[in-house]
Amino acid sequence: MAKVLTSKEENYAQWYNDLVLKSGLAENSAVRGCMVIKPYGYAIWEKMKEELDRRFKETGHENAYFPLFIPKSFFSREANHVEGFAKECAVVTHYRLKTDKETGEIIVDPEAKLEEELIVRPTSETIIWNTYKNWIQSYRDLPLLINQWANVVRWEMRTRLFLRTTEFLWQEGHTAHATRKEAEDETMQMVGVYAEFAEKFLGIPVLVGYKTESEKFAGAVETMTLEALMQDGKALQAGTSHFLGQNFAKAFDVQFTNKDGKLDYVWATSWGMTTRMIGALIMAHSDNNGLILPPRVAPIQVVIVPIYKGSEKSPPIAEAALKIKAQLTALGISVKFDDRDTHKPGWKFAEYELKGVPLRIAIGPRDIEKGTIELARRDTLEKTILPQEGIATHIAALLDEIQETIYQKALDFRSKNTHRVENWEELVDVLENKGGFALAHWDGTKESEDRIKETKATIRCLPLDGEKELGKCVVSGKPSSQRIVIAKAY
Amino acid sequence: MAKVLTSKEENYAQWYNDLVLKSGLAENSAVRGCMVIKPYGYAIWEKMKEELDRRFKETGHENAYFPLFIPKSFFSREANHVEGFAKECAVVTHYRLKTDKETGEIIVDPEAKLEEELIVRPTSETIIWNTYKNWIQSYRDLPLLINQWANVVRWEMRTRLFLRTTEFLWQEGHTAHATRKEAEDETMQMVGVYAEFAEKFLGIPVLVGYKTESEKFAGAVETMTLEALMQDGKALQAGTSHFLGQNFAKAFDVQFTNKDGKLDYVWATSWGMTTRMIGALIMAHSDNNGLILPPRVAPIQVVIVPIYKGSEKSPPIAEAALKIKAQLTALGISVKFDDRDTHKPGWKFAEYELKGVPLRIAIGPRDIEKGTIELARRDTLEKTILPQEGIATHIAALLDEIQETIYQKALDFRSKNTHRVENWEELVDVLENKGGFALAHWDGTKESEDRIKETKATIRCLPLDGEKELGKCVVSGKPSSQRIVIAKAY
Repeated sequence: MAKVLTSKEENYAQWYNDLVLKSGLAENSAVRGCMVIKPYGYAIWEKMKEELDRRFKETGHENAYFPLFIPKSFFSREANHVEGFAKECAVVTHYRLKTDKETGEIIVDPEAKLEEELIVRPTSETIIWNTYKNWIQSYRDLPLLINQWANVVRWEMRTRLFLRTTEFLWQEGHTAHATRKEAEDETMQMVGVYAEFAEKFLGIPVLVGYKTESEKFAGAVETMTLEALMQDGKALQAGTSHFLGQNFAKAFDVQFTNKDGKLDYVWATSWGMTTRMIGALIMAHSDNNGLILPPRVAPIQVVIVPIYKGSEKSPPIAEAALKIKAQLTALGISVKFDDRDTHKPGWKFAEYELKGVPLRIAIGPRDIEKGTIELARRDTLEKTILPQEGIATHIAALLDEIQETIYQKALDFRSKNTHRVENWEELVDVLENKGGFALAHWDGTKESEDRIKETKATIRCLPLDGEKELGKCVVSGKPSSQRIVIAKAY
Repeated sequence: MAKVLTSKEENYAQWYNDLVLKSGLAENSAVRGCMVIKPYGYAIWEKMKEELDRRFKETGHENAYFPLFIPKSFFSREANHVEGFAKECAVVTHYRLKTDKETGEIIVDPEAKLEEELIVRPTSETIIWNTYKNWIQSYRDLPLLINQWANVVRWEMRTRLFLRTTEFLWQEGHTAHATRKEAEDETMQMVGVYAEFAEKFLGIPVLVGYKTESEKFAGAVETMTLEALMQDGKALQAGTSHFLGQNFAKAFDVQFTNKDGKLDYVWATSWGMTTRMIGALIMAHSDNNGLILPPRVAPIQVVIVPIYKGSEKSPPIAEAALKIKAQLTALGISVKFDDRDTHKPGWKFAEYELKGVPLRIAIGPRDIEKGTIELARRDTLEKTILPQEGIATHIAALLDEIQETIYQKALDFRSKNTHRVENWEELVDVLENKGGFALAHWDGTKESEDRIKETKATIRCLPLDGEKELGKCVVSGKPSSQRIVIAKAY
């Protein structure tokens, strides 16, 4: 098989880009920084969406849709928010084009200038809280548990497919509550939903924790984050859940009458996960042959490739294939029977390896004689000859096993690449030579955090389940009661 | 029950607007012309999406996602397209805001002006065909059968919730084919998918036909349309499917090597259906008490309201309700048990009538004694007392009957409001006094069509299954071989 990807060892960034392009997930578009998500990439996003949406609805949330555009003045209402979001964004200034009479060219009609510029949403807190103002009068209207599936735009200068693009797809939850505790519980619940989704569905182990003041969401009181470790030893923020306090309620004057008949400001959360997770999925599991997809998120879970002798199709092979396909489909497994005669079996093998299909079945003339098939696992590349009889139940169990194996492998990788560091030299050694997560003591000051940032790494989170342990800050030597996680990150 | 809606007879437009607002489907936003789709309205859209998506995938289509922004120059590439679409649109001219040092206000950074303006997509033919150029080299790459679920923006001066909004949600199919016939067949197939969806799922009968030259899509060779009749006698275009010929392939230079080894331009189609269909759904079926939703598209198909004596909840009533809920859920029916003690039964009855829930079950103390329930149909407002025993199977069958009844009622309405007219006076009489569809002969000329447009009505379509019949044009008296459909329209 010809090598189609740059190897990870040679150039990790190039390997990633090759893989996204060659496996047909996405490509750059004619519009700077915006990607085209191709059908195979979009099919993965659909699986993610469906699973997340199910989990959101199970926890009582409903979907709604708010405008793409946000009046410029809305951003100024929440002081921190405007600093974080109103800067690098797409600004709509006009609403009409016209044909220039002299040149015949299409130009922006200067007479169609908007009174107030509109911003293409980078996130929707402002427009949503402006709307909630009319929806919430009393505690009876609370909680309001709403999610939106949408596209958002943040003008990025340096973009990478899925990881950082000017336009991306995401969901954003925006909830309103009568009490601080309810909103804090919601923040925690949703980071939990994300963590379970990442681990059980995508096979990506995540650390859950709090962001530092300097790293939290612009406008939040507290930001919770999921941090995943990629195969090159860099961290990736996989989702965030924000406790917004009463900041947006105050900015948009959203008050309600509580059970005691008194007016109070509403408590808020917001939480989001994006198409960036496709990038995380790729970088957490894949190898130099292509994608490795955990079965639960794989658009095609099993592919059947017939091995015909010469160019003639063989009816017994096709029959056996279709019979197995029907058995697998009945078990809820998604199967593709690739019966095309335009491509040879070897080409197909490489193609489905590249696309990360978890299991491949090959059936040739000798299999028909013997009642067997050849089964190949994408994750381990193991091949086995097995009887056709009972193959569907075997495969159903094997898919679960593969899901677990992929997760365990990523978990082992993370364990091996998580280093306890006791002083500055050890921290720098991890960041510069070893990669991975450094667990270090920190004194909680901005000064020490800034010093850490000079290494180009950041504090990823203060782990939620980190054990209390007395120690000394790796920067200042001052006392600290808990280790934090430091890493270079995407 | 207090009347919450303006009656249809009094003011149809006001009735529609009241209904959209009061039933919680949507509302206007702070951004002119853009709506907020509220959870109940979005739940209807989700049902529509799911059903359409299933039908698209059944017919071999895949989803993908293309950029929100389109470079201005792309519109100029197809001469007719630019006339139709590049005019009233949202134009992004800058990519950054900044704080004005003197006033402290947030302003557009004049230094962040884009070299080429970006248009927020009003439709995606141009950016998609620019992309297809790289995907198509040979007949082996064809057909390409792709659909996109997305938001689009067309700057509208006069907007109405769902019917005409600056931003709306839709799907747009964009297919590429090796031959003219294949593309024509696809155009026809998709208008058929839409028609079946409208009739079987939404209960809205539609006329399928061709648009005239002046009414077709900007850039199409031929536009097929679905025309539905609303209760006020006006037509509504419910979806379109376009045969684009080689127009976009030529504009974006998309050539392929055909089976004979020769270069040829690719043949194209595009087709779309939008959130406007929610407006059609409302106007086709609803009454002065609120929405009437066909069961297949209803987010809640059955609501159970307990009738407690006084303020005490009664365990036997709740038990009976939960038992019926479980039986219905097992049959795949969506049920809500509204056990809130914050609202009285009468309030709930009115609320679910307003929201168009097809069936309502009420259970009170006497029902517990007798083993009965009260079942109320939303469409006919009929109430019946029925035994609890076997109620789930009865309801499953009844939901199908309601679906059919709603469709039949709309079909009868259309039949009664379809008029054969033989001359200009009869046409004007229908348009000004009777409303509905006028079936008239037309000579096929632009002059006669323009004369018809002076009445503020338009030729809705040349029906696909119209019988051949010789006659005289209602405008010119010249010979004609088939009747066309004329109506005032949304």
